[in-house]
Amino acid sequence: MKYLKLLLIFIPISIICEVLKLNEVALFFTSAAAIIPLAGIMGEATEEISVYSGPRIGGFLNATFGNATELIIAFFALKEGLFDIVKASIAGSVIGNVLLVLGASMFVGGLKFKTQTFNKSANEVTSSMLLFAVIGLVVPAIFLHTVKPELLSSPHYEKLSIGIAAFMFIIYICGLFFSFYTHKDIYGTNHSEEIKSKWSLKKSISILVLATVAIALESEFLVGSVESVTHSLGLSEFFVGIILIPIIGNAAEHSTAILMAAKNKMDVALEIALGSSLQIILFVAPLLIFLSLIFKPMDFVFNEFELISIIVAVIIANKVSNDGESNWLEGLQLIAVYGILAISFLII
Amino acid sequence: MKYLKLLLIFIPISIICEVLKLNEVALFFTSAAAIIPLAGIMGEATEEISVYSGPRIGGFLNATFGNATELIIAFFALKEGLFDIVKASIAGSVIGNVLLVLGASMFVGGLKFKTQTFNKSANEVTSSMLLFAVIGLVVPAIFLHTVKPELLSSPHYEKLSIGIAAFMFIIYICGLFFSFYTHKDIYGTNHSEEIKSKWSLKKSISILVLATVAIALESEFLVGSVESVTHSLGLSEFFVGIILIPIIGNAAEHSTAILMAAKNKMDVALEIALGSSLQIILFVAPLLIFLSLIFKPMDFVFNEFELISIIVAVIIANKVSNDGESNWLEGLQLIAVYGILAISFLII
Amino acid sequence: MKYLKLLLIFIPISIICEVLKLNEVALFFTSAAAIIPLAGIMGEATEEISVYSGPRIGGFLNATFGNATELIIAFFALKEGLFDIVKASIAGSVIGNVLLVLGASMFVGGLKFKTQTFNKSANEVTSSMLLFAVIGLVVPAIFLHTVKPELLSSPHYEKLSIGIAAFMFIIYICGLFFSFYTHKDIYGTNHSEEIKSKWSLKKSISILVLATVAIALESEFLVGSVESVTHSLGLSEFFVGIILIPIIGNAAEHSTAILMAAKNKMDVALEIALGSSLQIILFVAPLLIFLSLIFKPMDFVFNEFELISIIVAVIIANKVSNDGESNWLEGLQLIAVYGILAISFLII
Repeated sequence: MKYLKLLLIFIPISIICEVLKLNEVALFFTSAAAIIPLAGIMGEATEEISVYSGPRIGGFLNATFGNATELIIAFFALKEGLFDIVKASIAGSVIGNVLLVLGASMFVGGLKFKTQTFNKSANEVTSSMLLFAVIGLVVPAIFLHTVKPELLSSPHYEKLSIGIAAFMFIIYICGLFFSFYTHKDIYGTNHSEEIKSKWSLKKSISILVLATVAIALESEFLVGSVESVTHSLGLSEFFVGIILIPIIGNAAEHSTAILMAAKNKMDVALEIALGSSLQIILFVAPLLIFLSLIFKPMDFVFNEFELISIIVAVIIANKVSNDGESNWLEGLQLIAVYGILAISFLII
Repeated sequence: MKYLKLLLIFIPISIICEVLKLNEVALFFTSAAAIIPLAGIMGEATEEISVYSGPRIGGFLNATFGNATELIIAFFALKEGLFDIVKASIAGSVIGNVLLVLGASMFVGGLKFKTQTFNKSANEVTSSMLLFAVIGLVVPAIFLHTVKPELLSSPHYEKLSIGIAAFMFIIYICGLFFSFYTHKDIYGTNHSEEIKSKWSLKKSISILVLATVAIALESEFLVGSVESVTHSLGLSEFFVGIILIPIIGNAAEHSTAILMAAKNKMDVALEIALGSSLQIILFVAPLLIFLSLIFKPMDFVFNEFELISIIVAVIIANKVSNDGESNWLEGLQLIAVYGILAISFLII
Repeated sequence: MKYLKLLLIFIPISIICEVLKLNEVALFFTSAAAIIPLAGIMGEATEEISVYSGPRIGGFLNATFGNATELIIAFFALKEGLFDIVKASIAGSVIGNVLLVLGASMFVGGLKFKTQTFNKSANEVTSSMLLFAVIGLVVPAIFLHTVKPELLSSPHYEKLSIGIAAFMFIIYICGLFFSFYTHKDIYGTNHSEEIKSKWSLKKSISILVLATVAIALESEFLVGSVESVTHSLGLSEFFVGIILIPIIGNAAEHSTAILMAAKNKMDVALEIALGSSLQIILFVAPLLIFLSLIFKPMDFVFNEFELISIIVAVIIANKVSNDGESNWLEGLQLIAVYGILAISFLII
């Protein structure tokens, strides 16, 4: 995490790129590099505030602001009407968390510890919730891909997206209620113990606000330069959305999860990876649908590649985490599935 | 269950509607309301007869007559050549049982008891049988949707349906043999204990016969008025078949399952929900295929929406029941999946 | 196994058929009959060599030469450019092993023993590996079936197949490393105990070489007569590839697995059935892709029927073996799924 902060140097560099109207490809990569440590700082500040607010509100804050970076980037893409990039980056965040973050955690943890175990009951809740989330995401999309094209322009279409988004959101709230209230004992008590405040509450809030502003600025640079990047490097918008943007948005979480796995705290690593995916589908995605009503309504219909990738990711993650144990080979399998998806995306 | 019997008043009302040729929409809803308590009475009478016939034959009777209502309704729809409604109502019965009945049971039970447990070994058998049943239903249909359209009119088509139906039926018989003979100890002994006769055998048989006759009459009214209902209310035949008819046919089972769950007898609730689905796919559906040979042969090929719904329902039910435990959130997830499917059906 | 050796008589008979240019259908079936015992002898010889080479290299030899017969048959089909048959026979080998071999083992074993148990941890590794393998096989194919047809002739296409094949191969090597090195204790020690040499090392090697040469010869006959068989018997090339050829190639393994199950050694039966499928996807298939570069590059894109069959086979096998127990009904379900697939293939 400390080394990541060196990337903060890219904040001024990206601003210079923007002001001097330098190469747009440079702007894309410098703003991307700047977002990575900022997302990490935002996460730290949220956790600090949690210490002061007590475990219940703290858990809620973490659960809600955990994917703020993705949300901010997606918001600017939404404003620009880049719906394909917004949806690809949602799908990419899910598969990135479920395959790459979890896979790398299991692999790195598995190199140090022969077999790592984690809380089976808690994982059962998360993984059945994730399955639900994916069904909500996938089923209406498959239905719409199946019906005759002439129906696709009907006004029902948009209503369906809003209905599904509302459903998702309600289940998300119910899930929080389950985790923090009716069944909080399933998750054990190890979380609250290890957190110790290092910043004052005031300092934490100030840092959170500053990081958010900086991320918003850099996200605007990033989204603004996407088009040039796709042209210059010969990548599809889809590839940028599903692979590059999620890696940028999740890099901080990614490194935390691996660090936790290396300390044999697989429960935390799993919660980061799977919990993050859950939030993206049940909270970030519906929120974006609602926000899009301000500009131009975005639908909830992912393309076939996104659907297949999400389905595959959740199936193998379910299988691998089902027995409450992990090892390096399982981690490698998840990474390899990510690799297979990534090279498949290149040919589309 | 007692309150349901008040609905018996709709038997004379529906007959009046029919005789006086009143509004057909009223006929649809009054005959529907009449079927609900009749299905319950039929179930009770079958259970009474089981007490006299001993557990083995009794189990077989329950397993065979458990879905008699669905069978009778489907039979009249078949006679009218309403194949789409027949197939939609089979699919709807499966998803209704697996998602709505099981979901409501887990939810209501989970509100009273924090975690409910059930017999894992018995559930393992039922759920792998259900997976088999779904594969038998889904695979030939996907194949036929995939082959070039010009092949679809070939005579092979009908032969395939009969072949698959025969396969299903044989496995169903083998499953009964497994449950009532070779592995009956898996299921524990709690079933036989709690049943006590309240009616004499003669009375039970008379009630069964009467209820069957009344259901047959009301089913004819129901099926006869379907077309008017779809026109008047702007619903598709598909929606009526997959949502409304199964709710009517399963309402009695539905309330029994929830009642059992509220008494913490989750094993019984699961058997009603999943066992019912099994019977519909492995016994009712093949029987309808065979019966259709009398009128005009019906094929076994479900449409894409039915297939996707069934697949999704079985996958999430499997996931949720896999660990031998349930809670309110899992119940809610199942209900929410049913809701997502239902609003998706509306837009087709 | 002993009775199978009587089939060796078909070696001279098939040679006579070929030399005298007799009926090509007779050539197909006599060479098929000759391959069955030869595949068995090849397996025996490999196992004998393992005794001398020690468990680690022995395991590797078994894992690598276990599907030599399929590889040799496919090689000759590849040389003839019969890509559809090669791919169908890969798919058929997977579903044959996963459904027919495993199903028959569970069924026959289950008739003798009420419930058979097997090593859950080892099965967990194999089945998650199998799931990975299937994802690698299926995802790029679905992607390519989904993209617009005009993209299908792009040079990316071939590169993708080679890339995926390389990925598969690396994971296969990692899997061997896992099984024979880092986590070999998961698998218990029962394997090494029961093997006792009956042949000298020199004799074993001679027999292995002889059997390989004979299989190569008979495979050339078999592949050469496929076309006549499809014409004469009215079967599609696809049916021959996916049903007939895999049964020929796997008959020896098939009988060994059933024999083991009947002795209540379910671990060995599972390893033969699932381990074989793994090898075919992760080792034989990539090797064929690489070998095809010598003649004319073959792609890795299976057709929809192959994909669906493989997916279905792996899902139900996973479900059935997931709890570490088996019984006759589970075996019957697997066999019935194979039957449903087989009759579905007939109508295509």
